Amino acid sequence: MIKAGIVGGTGYTGVELLRLLAAHPNVELTVITSRGEKGVQVSQLFPNLRGRVDLAFVEPDDALLKSCDVVFFATPNGTAMQSTPVLLEAGVKVIDLAADFRLRQADEWEQWYGIPHACPELLAEAVYGLPEVNRRAIQTARLVANPGCYPTAVQLGFLPLLEAGVIDRQSLIADAKSGVSGAGRKAEVGILLSEVSDSFKAYGVPGHRHLPEIRQGLTAVAGQPVELVFVPHLTPMIRGIHATLYATLVDSDVDLQALFEQRYAAEPFVDVLPPKSHPETRSVRGVNQCRLAVHRPQNGKTVVVLSVIDNLVKGAAGQAVQNMNLMFGLPETAGLEGIALLP
Amino acid sequence: MIKAGIVGGTGYTGVELLRLLAAHPNVELTVITSRGEKGVQVSQLFPNLRGRVDLAFVEPDDALLKSCDVVFFATPNGTAMQSTPVLLEAGVKVIDLAADFRLRQADEWEQWYGIPHACPELLAEAVYGLPEVNRRAIQTARLVANPGCYPTAVQLGFLPLLEAGVIDRQSLIADAKSGVSGAGRKAEVGILLSEVSDSFKAYGVPGHRHLPEIRQGLTAVAGQPVELVFVPHLTPMIRGIHATLYATLVDSDVDLQALFEQRYAAEPFVDVLPPKSHPETRSVRGVNQCRLAVHRPQNGKTVVVLSVIDNLVKGAAGQAVQNMNLMFGLPETAGLEGIALLP
Amino acid sequence: MIKAGIVGGTGYTGVELLRLLAAHPNVELTVITSRGEKGVQVSQLFPNLRGRVDLAFVEPDDALLKSCDVVFFATPNGTAMQSTPVLLEAGVKVIDLAADFRLRQADEWEQWYGIPHACPELLAEAVYGLPEVNRRAIQTARLVANPGCYPTAVQLGFLPLLEAGVIDRQSLIADAKSGVSGAGRKAEVGILLSEVSDSFKAYGVPGHRHLPEIRQGLTAVAGQPVELVFVPHLTPMIRGIHATLYATLVDSDVDLQALFEQRYAAEPFVDVLPPKSHPETRSVRGVNQCRLAVHRPQNGKTVVVLSVIDNLVKGAAGQAVQNMNLMFGLPETAGLEGIALLP
Amino acid sequence: MIKAGIVGGTGYTGVELLRLLAAHPNVELTVITSRGEKGVQVSQLFPNLRGRVDLAFVEPDDALLKSCDVVFFATPNGTAMQSTPVLLEAGVKVIDLAADFRLRQADEWEQWYGIPHACPELLAEAVYGLPEVNRRAIQTARLVANPGCYPTAVQLGFLPLLEAGVIDRQSLIADAKSGVSGAGRKAEVGILLSEVSDSFKAYGVPGHRHLPEIRQGLTAVAGQPVELVFVPHLTPMIRGIHATLYATLVDSDVDLQALFEQRYAAEPFVDVLPPKSHPETRSVRGVNQCRLAVHRPQNGKTVVVLSVIDNLVKGAAGQAVQNMNLMFGLPETAGLEGIALLP
Repeated sequence: MIKAGIVGGTGYTGVELLRLLAAHPNVELTVITSRGEKGVQVSQLFPNLRGRVDLAFVEPDDALLKSCDVVFFATPNGTAMQSTPVLLEAGVKVIDLAADFRLRQADEWEQWYGIPHACPELLAEAVYGLPEVNRRAIQTARLVANPGCYPTAVQLGFLPLLEAGVIDRQSLIADAKSGVSGAGRKAEVGILLSEVSDSFKAYGVPGHRHLPEIRQGLTAVAGQPVELVFVPHLTPMIRGIHATLYATLVDSDVDLQALFEQRYAAEPFVDVLPPKSHPETRSVRGVNQCRLAVHRPQNGKTVVVLSVIDNLVKGAAGQAVQNMNLMFGLPETAGLEGIALLP
Repeated sequence: MIKAGIVGGTGYTGVELLRLLAAHPNVELTVITSRGEKGVQVSQLFPNLRGRVDLAFVEPDDALLKSCDVVFFATPNGTAMQSTPVLLEAGVKVIDLAADFRLRQADEWEQWYGIPHACPELLAEAVYGLPEVNRRAIQTARLVANPGCYPTAVQLGFLPLLEAGVIDRQSLIADAKSGVSGAGRKAEVGILLSEVSDSFKAYGVPGHRHLPEIRQGLTAVAGQPVELVFVPHLTPMIRGIHATLYATLVDSDVDLQALFEQRYAAEPFVDVLPPKSHPETRSVRGVNQCRLAVHRPQNGKTVVVLSVIDNLVKGAAGQAVQNMNLMFGLPETAGLEGIALLP
Repeated sequence: MIKAGIVGGTGYTGVELLRLLAAHPNVELTVITSRGEKGVQVSQLFPNLRGRVDLAFVEPDDALLKSCDVVFFATPNGTAMQSTPVLLEAGVKVIDLAADFRLRQADEWEQWYGIPHACPELLAEAVYGLPEVNRRAIQTARLVANPGCYPTAVQLGFLPLLEAGVIDRQSLIADAKSGVSGAGRKAEVGILLSEVSDSFKAYGVPGHRHLPEIRQGLTAVAGQPVELVFVPHLTPMIRGIHATLYATLVDSDVDLQALFEQRYAAEPFVDVLPPKSHPETRSVRGVNQCRLAVHRPQNGKTVVVLSVIDNLVKGAAGQAVQNMNLMFGLPETAGLEGIALLP
Repeated sequence: MIKAGIVGGTGYTGVELLRLLAAHPNVELTVITSRGEKGVQVSQLFPNLRGRVDLAFVEPDDALLKSCDVVFFATPNGTAMQSTPVLLEAGVKVIDLAADFRLRQADEWEQWYGIPHACPELLAEAVYGLPEVNRRAIQTARLVANPGCYPTAVQLGFLPLLEAGVIDRQSLIADAKSGVSGAGRKAEVGILLSEVSDSFKAYGVPGHRHLPEIRQGLTAVAGQPVELVFVPHLTPMIRGIHATLYATLVDSDVDLQALFEQRYAAEPFVDVLPPKSHPETRSVRGVNQCRLAVHRPQNGKTVVVLSVIDNLVKGAAGQAVQNMNLMFGLPETAGLEGIALLP
């Protein structure tokens, strides 16, 4: 059994990690930390875990975490980078669900996250944990930067088009819609039910931290610079991201459906729907799945990709478990075989 | 492997049965019928099952169903009773998720459901499938009447009080609130999102079909007639029932918390929360669990029990699988170990 | 024009008062205070008021408030009682939407609200602002204690029964369900969309501050002590309260429908629905209306009253405007003629 | 008083028209028809209208409708065109809220709506009722084609850019999100709460009937052909449309904020928000308003416009009343002064 620790388990990615790891056949949860909830039973904070997780939150403590085989950071940005060096040195593998190791340039990180990076020397080693792109590197990684939720949905949608070189790389548009859990479990007026239920809005149009992450990932895939307009929206639901992606075709003869189906034929967690489909976020509720559909309206020059994930699973905790499976040589789907809850 | 068939798999209890049975370690889904969707892949109607259920709906056909070890009826009321006699005769076990075999008196059934009963001779044999009351009988039953969703939540809440004889049996009140999936997957204006979202209402106050079922069950438990006022409400959520139960104590010295904890100590699917708790329906979302809390406000004469279930799981498909497990000598929790999705 | 000031206009009752007063034909909004938002345009915080309210929040300041004819307190409990004496002395009428003047006994207030009362000498003078009970007293009041949201829905439902003496006063039950806006516009995890959407729960079962207020009001109406069990619930919607009320009939011959219709025949804001009706909260969304239905299930001894209001209107800001209309000799319905938004 | 009739008043645009017209100072509602609900009191179907609308539905009857000054058609597509000629001949003005008179080419209408047009000779006379474009023509029109909900939100957002000629007309993208009431009050499984709540999806990507309407309107404004990709989505809320619009700037020096503010400075129902704003649909809930914000992310070549309306008001019934006001020489804002309900 792999001994797993979670740092910062009181947010939504934390409780989702707990749900997945508690049912994982090869994992033993040994440590879960939270400064604020120290001493509290996990199942008191999250009653869905009653009878399933018999741990209490403890104060963060690197000595304790060193006894783990793998440590997941489900913390705010800027936390994981404080403890990661010492854990790696102790032979513990680290999977960061926050943004600390996602960007390869320390200065770009500082620009978007507002603080200097604590261990820029690790940025080159950290592997960006999108298995559909970096599977082999993840298998041997000590440190995985788990992708953001929007970046996962957007990259998986653009990937086949960029790899095949069939779109104009300079004019991508990602119009993305997220459920409110993406904003975290934080005491903020702006995400109260009374504020965001029965309403819809865009946010962060002038600039969102996921933009450089997406741009970096797409550029790596394309092998050349990619320009992107990224507009996130808040939609009145708990879980789910729907990315509607637009690009201009430079090759009008490409069979888009075949392109997508072939690219993802061997991927256990990417599902290309039949032509003319419209994936619903509920079809991936609670599961580590991305469902895609590709359209070419009026047979014009614009390709439209519809990409849905559960932001807390394929967009966070599930992908982290997928990465752990790869890092430890387990079957990639271990502990991730649930079926989406519908309705 | 147990060969399982589902009749009428296009409703919400049907798709939930599919989700549970597709992941059940001891079950092979062999037949699923639907007159309306004949020929359609199950996963086309319910995309959460893509890659997990590789069956198409077929026309209902008793010959085909006879090849099953167990047949679940997830049909409208009045359907199961047409085919049950022939299936039982063929040695197939039957679990009816509708109401056909819930009431023991054929005339009462006819009064509430508006049509004569097709096989009243089976009513005495049918076992009411509430394992917390009838576990032993279920183990040897050929025919199980799976309880209604409201009746499950209400009976589990009143059970310890009636068995212990500590409340006045003549003045029970069950104020119950259900998510909209309880109304089924039917083309009706009254359950459109635009009609029932962001609103709340009672319904069926003059009389609801679950009333005689609850009364019969409680009377059986108490050994004496029980009188009940039952008021169901529609609440703007998909899944979940919250029953708020009121009774007048006749024994003021009873330790209510201990009474509940002891009654359910050995039950795998009933969870008594600590004193002063308020269970949330989301804590059982997607799982076969009933969570209960018992209160005595202002230390007065009224006991208040809060009981939550997922109407589609412990209130329908999950309880049906629990009953199947009992009928076939499997571990009672087989295939029912999921953890509730929260948030 | 009546010069109106609002203290604490950044919560939901505040913005609702602004919406109503901005459209009131006899009112000029002159002051709105908020310590936290000082200097901010009201319409920046609440964009629905763009082009309609051209005021900025100012620091609370009694001198400024003394220039008003009426001051509304839409503040947390314990605030209004600090400034009310000086305002009354200056000839300003005061309507408190919080709880400071609702309870007649200072010690009871201190017990439930946890701080000593700042001006207990005003408790006797303050008029409880439920026009359907205290219309005449409100017309001449200097100080009105605007009722709580739950107390409004519950009292209007029990009123005809207690006045007529047809129920047992010792065993009332109020099972009430509220939208989330009732919890206010506060940065609290417990009322995030991701926490309370698609879920249902009771809260405060051991004791809720509205209990003594309801008990006091019902006792005043009955002329004798009334005992009540009050169980509030949180339902996943923004606005609306649905109170389901239970009482035991002591007079079995009473015509309940006639009793309710006669009691409220002259009331502009109480609407008794036809027999067998089930009022929906959306039918009063945004309006100063209480809609009621009365049932006697199975013709038994229990009467069931269904009572719906919009917690922010008839349960708060609308009732405050209704009280203001009465205090200033305006038509009671002035500024309150809107039609509920449905769907 | 203007005598107004409504044909087909049982849908959501119908009840919204009723709400607005019942409170309109210059209108008397005289006839409301519905084949299905003939004889039923309007306020029985829509309880928000109790005490405000004292009419019963009658069988559709042109003779009766001829007694009106204006008739609104809130009917399915293909209905208004049957009765419009005879009403116009009788001197009745007609406002069609469906699509019968929106497209100027009968063959294009037939192509998208699947039936031949019943009175193609009226298409040239019909005025497309977008007052911000066609105010003068509406004032003298006998027949107004009220715009669709998506087309209203999309056209108002692109209008200033196309009129000023600052964008590439060949690559517009409209990513639009609608509340579920936009799908109407129809008994369809696909819009049940249990199907579309807590989920998000695109629909109609291969082609949606609002596409030719938008294209026609934008082409008229631009004076040259406009090409557009239009992707509608269903978002789990009742009311509201949020259109996120993308275009490529051909003039990099244009002051976008000034352009929008100047274009709409005199418009009573279009509100341009300050720079960096993100309009929320709730800010227009229940009111005849379009709120816009214009962005240029990363100062790049793509302009992003955010446009919100209430699909039932500025997107349907409210715009119809605005058109009526213009047609009858009333103040354009008569009966449309409500303030949006927030929260």
